[in-house]
Amino acid sequence: MTATLSLDQLNSLPAPAFAAALAGIFEHAPWVGEAAAAQRPFATIAALHEAMMTAVYAAPRETQLIFLRAHPELGGKVARAGTMTAESISEQGGLGLNKLSDAEFDRFAQINAQYRGKFGFPFIICVRRQTRDAILDAFAQRVELGLDAELTTALEEISHITRLRLVDKVKGDGAPKTEGRLSTHVLDTYTGKPAAGVTIQLYEVGSSARSLITEVVTNHDGRTDKPLMSGGPLRAGTYEIVFAIGDYFRGKNIQLTKPAFLDVVPIRFGIAEPEGHYHVPLLATPWSYSTYRGS
Amino acid sequence: MTATLSLDQLNSLPAPAFAAALAGIFEHAPWVGEAAAAQRPFATIAALHEAMMTAVYAAPRETQLIFLRAHPELGGKVARAGTMTAESISEQGGLGLNKLSDAEFDRFAQINAQYRGKFGFPFIICVRRQTRDAILDAFAQRVELGLDAELTTALEEISHITRLRLVDKVKGDGAPKTEGRLSTHVLDTYTGKPAAGVTIQLYEVGSSARSLITEVVTNHDGRTDKPLMSGGPLRAGTYEIVFAIGDYFRGKNIQLTKPAFLDVVPIRFGIAEPEGHYHVPLLATPWSYSTYRGS
Amino acid sequence: MTATLSLDQLNSLPAPAFAAALAGIFEHAPWVGEAAAAQRPFATIAALHEAMMTAVYAAPRETQLIFLRAHPELGGKVARAGTMTAESISEQGGLGLNKLSDAEFDRFAQINAQYRGKFGFPFIICVRRQTRDAILDAFAQRVELGLDAELTTALEEISHITRLRLVDKVKGDGAPKTEGRLSTHVLDTYTGKPAAGVTIQLYEVGSSARSLITEVVTNHDGRTDKPLMSGGPLRAGTYEIVFAIGDYFRGKNIQLTKPAFLDVVPIRFGIAEPEGHYHVPLLATPWSYSTYRGS
Amino acid sequence: MTATLSLDQLNSLPAPAFAAALAGIFEHAPWVGEAAAAQRPFATIAALHEAMMTAVYAAPRETQLIFLRAHPELGGKVARAGTMTAESISEQGGLGLNKLSDAEFDRFAQINAQYRGKFGFPFIICVRRQTRDAILDAFAQRVELGLDAELTTALEEISHITRLRLVDKVKGDGAPKTEGRLSTHVLDTYTGKPAAGVTIQLYEVGSSARSLITEVVTNHDGRTDKPLMSGGPLRAGTYEIVFAIGDYFRGKNIQLTKPAFLDVVPIRFGIAEPEGHYHVPLLATPWSYSTYRGS
Repeated sequence: MTATLSLDQLNSLPAPAFAAALAGIFEHAPWVGEAAAAQRPFATIAALHEAMMTAVYAAPRETQLIFLRAHPELGGKVARAGTMTAESISEQGGLGLNKLSDAEFDRFAQINAQYRGKFGFPFIICVRRQTRDAILDAFAQRVELGLDAELTTALEEISHITRLRLVDKVKGDGAPKTEGRLSTHVLDTYTGKPAAGVTIQLYEVGSSARSLITEVVTNHDGRTDKPLMSGGPLRAGTYEIVFAIGDYFRGKNIQLTKPAFLDVVPIRFGIAEPEGHYHVPLLATPWSYSTYRGS
Repeated sequence: MTATLSLDQLNSLPAPAFAAALAGIFEHAPWVGEAAAAQRPFATIAALHEAMMTAVYAAPRETQLIFLRAHPELGGKVARAGTMTAESISEQGGLGLNKLSDAEFDRFAQINAQYRGKFGFPFIICVRRQTRDAILDAFAQRVELGLDAELTTALEEISHITRLRLVDKVKGDGAPKTEGRLSTHVLDTYTGKPAAGVTIQLYEVGSSARSLITEVVTNHDGRTDKPLMSGGPLRAGTYEIVFAIGDYFRGKNIQLTKPAFLDVVPIRFGIAEPEGHYHVPLLATPWSYSTYRGS
Repeated sequence: MTATLSLDQLNSLPAPAFAAALAGIFEHAPWVGEAAAAQRPFATIAALHEAMMTAVYAAPRETQLIFLRAHPELGGKVARAGTMTAESISEQGGLGLNKLSDAEFDRFAQINAQYRGKFGFPFIICVRRQTRDAILDAFAQRVELGLDAELTTALEEISHITRLRLVDKVKGDGAPKTEGRLSTHVLDTYTGKPAAGVTIQLYEVGSSARSLITEVVTNHDGRTDKPLMSGGPLRAGTYEIVFAIGDYFRGKNIQLTKPAFLDVVPIRFGIAEPEGHYHVPLLATPWSYSTYRGS
Repeated sequence: MTATLSLDQLNSLPAPAFAAALAGIFEHAPWVGEAAAAQRPFATIAALHEAMMTAVYAAPRETQLIFLRAHPELGGKVARAGTMTAESISEQGGLGLNKLSDAEFDRFAQINAQYRGKFGFPFIICVRRQTRDAILDAFAQRVELGLDAELTTALEEISHITRLRLVDKVKGDGAPKTEGRLSTHVLDTYTGKPAAGVTIQLYEVGSSARSLITEVVTNHDGRTDKPLMSGGPLRAGTYEIVFAIGDYFRGKNIQLTKPAFLDVVPIRFGIAEPEGHYHVPLLATPWSYSTYRGS
């Protein structure tokens, strides 16, 4: 998705050009852009997105189903074959869904088949807002829903997907919120000062494995120079921040037992709001600590 | 170590019978018991143990070295061959050191050889006071010591080993402390009440794996009916208590996000004093928690 | 209330003697004891009390009102004149209501008059379960109620008063709960140990003044040798525990600023359940502390 | 101290005019400015101040004593008579030392006399960095010192006084730090959100009384729109922040007991570094809270 457009440009294009410019946002559904074209000008990108989603919600159910059926399967054959839209490729690639092992591919194929068999359209989820484990959990939960409830859920995911695509593609006023943030700080309540120089690792925690996302060291204010995660929606899922607090206190010449009562402190937490701000601090002495969702 | 003796009996036995009765405590070293025999009566088991250790410390270095050399190697051929003393078999078996895989056996053999090559006696450690990982850490640290320092360390371990054996074998007044305790409790600071019905798992955390020690559920007072570990020395090492606090709050009909901010809370901590009391509580709301070494 | 009776004795006395023995419990209302006499034997003191209260609740409203009117006014002329029953004297004396200053006497007289003018009976409250300020607060709230609601409230207070009197007078199985408890402990999370030697003051906090209830020093376990309050119902009201944590840390040769960030830590809290257990601990470093209602 | 100067101006004035311009900084001591004049230009205001203090420290002891003797007594006759320098009037007035009651005036007169009798010069302290109680504490401590130690202390206070005066009078680069800050925030760990709308009172706590400094309400981020204290040095002393957390939770329709376990939470703390940043947050549920010196 290389080229970007301005909201001003979009407001002044002829209707067909307007719809064409936004063709990649709602896949294989030019009628969405066409419906929105009539309501121009839009004061904000958020208003443009709302108009497009209104067109989707207002469409007859059969049209909605055709629209959903035109989406690629997650980790499916289309992904492997390389025939997805550029937007889908970019999104699924972020989770590695286009590079599944044979076993994983088989698993996705199986649950995709189960889901499609029940609802008649592929499982759609905004992958940029989810960890891989969260996607599998959602699969398991949503396949149990009734058609009406699941149709509603699928369209909510369409709304998330297209909101992100629109914000990527269009620059201008009033962009809807698409960024979340995870931050931390470490306070040394033994000396009453911010804890500088603490090594921090952030992991994504899956049901079968955990993967390191970043490793940083706290600055003089006990914070990290930039958020642990930012720049887009957070992926809903389970995480763990691991604080090397034992090394920190030993570095202050505070005598700890061997092994230390507290050496490596893991804080495990869930992120449920991809556009939220999660501040997860650690207050620690060699013998105690606390954490909380802060602000 | 089936039969037990009373301190009164030991105080009144003829000297040779006294030494014979205690033969299993200091392995292959009847001279220790003989030296202690002359100082009877002992008012306490602790005094008896101190007298025996005094005899060891007072012996010429060459005698000490012979004494140390008579001990079996940890996880060594003697263990496999089944020719250890009953006491050694019981102790090493607790860690599974008599049932090592071929690879593990080779690793122990290699570090045993390195250690013996440097010091001329086998690596001795009170295995009942250590996790397997702590033993390997001690191996790595102690092989770097000089002979004098390591001889002192080895005799301290002999003191721990024999204190435990003596308390197992002799009943009477004034037993030295040989028991530690790990306890917990969960306080729900959302409702201001003890958290009943919280599932708790205790793990031993090794460098490469973790093993479940126990799983319990808190009672109406937010505590466990018996300590998480007790009845003997704690094994020095690293542990993790995992509290299923998300399930607890959901069970109270408190609405949590999906995933919950706090679902499964791990508290990782080290135990350095096998005869100490470690109380590791959790104070939690759905959005915060704290822990500390309590009393 | 010097003499005590056993439940066994009460169960076997002739009915008139039974009623006479309990005459002081429900003031000037021998009919209560007479009604209960017929239901003997009672397996527990709680059952006896319940039977007597059932008689009160079953009485015609006019009888209930006569019964309530026979009670002395709090801090009233009867108290000064010394013509209350022994039980009332003992109870009101605990709060000093029989020794009011002229100004206080006038204030009580005024609100008593207001209350009696509205409801036709004196304000009744179980003074042993309330601080003086809590009584004044209750006065202010209850005088706003309607007659039905206030009659219910007054009879609940009668139940509390008579439960306490009965437990004082009768010994035997199954006494209803009449004791609360306030306890604390201090944990030094700087060194990971119970804080021994901390001076603690407990104050009752009134709207205009605070009065010292007790001053104690923590023992080696960071606790007090006996609860801060116990041996009867707690008085509902507002309290403050003041911990001299600065002196404690200075005594450990920990260097604090001048003035210390934390010197004297006040924890203010309310007690609402006179028969409850309130555990109010302090976890502190020189730079942080926390407290909670524990168990 | 109406007119201000720029550092550039000061660097370019003739020496006598330079000394005259700074005459009010070091009272009745033109030689200080004269000594500094020779070292111009100064790159920063801090360097200018350092040069002036160097002149003071380098002066013969007799000159230092004459200099100290020329200062007015705190709360003394000169203050009442209105003959202090404008700078001294402004500073002492901030604490109300120019409007003492007769009794207070007598007390200050007595300790001033005691101090002057011992050292031969008036008690000097930077009143803008102290509460009234802290000044009285300092009086009591410093009068016990030996002459050398007290002379050093008095000159340190001169340094604080003149640094503040200089920063008030001269604008330019590199002003030395003269401002401290007290801030707070309230986190509701019951709902995992910043606590908005909490009424907060800040008191200065003296040995005999407490005085309200400010009352504010937390904003949507659980913070106050501006710091509780800022804009100059903090006054070293003891403070209390009182958080109306009971009203906050009741306002959220959370049912509390009567009285609430936590209603009004006082956090008492000392400020020792007038130019420091003190962040004193509250993390609270209806049943627990914690605080710490944050950053």
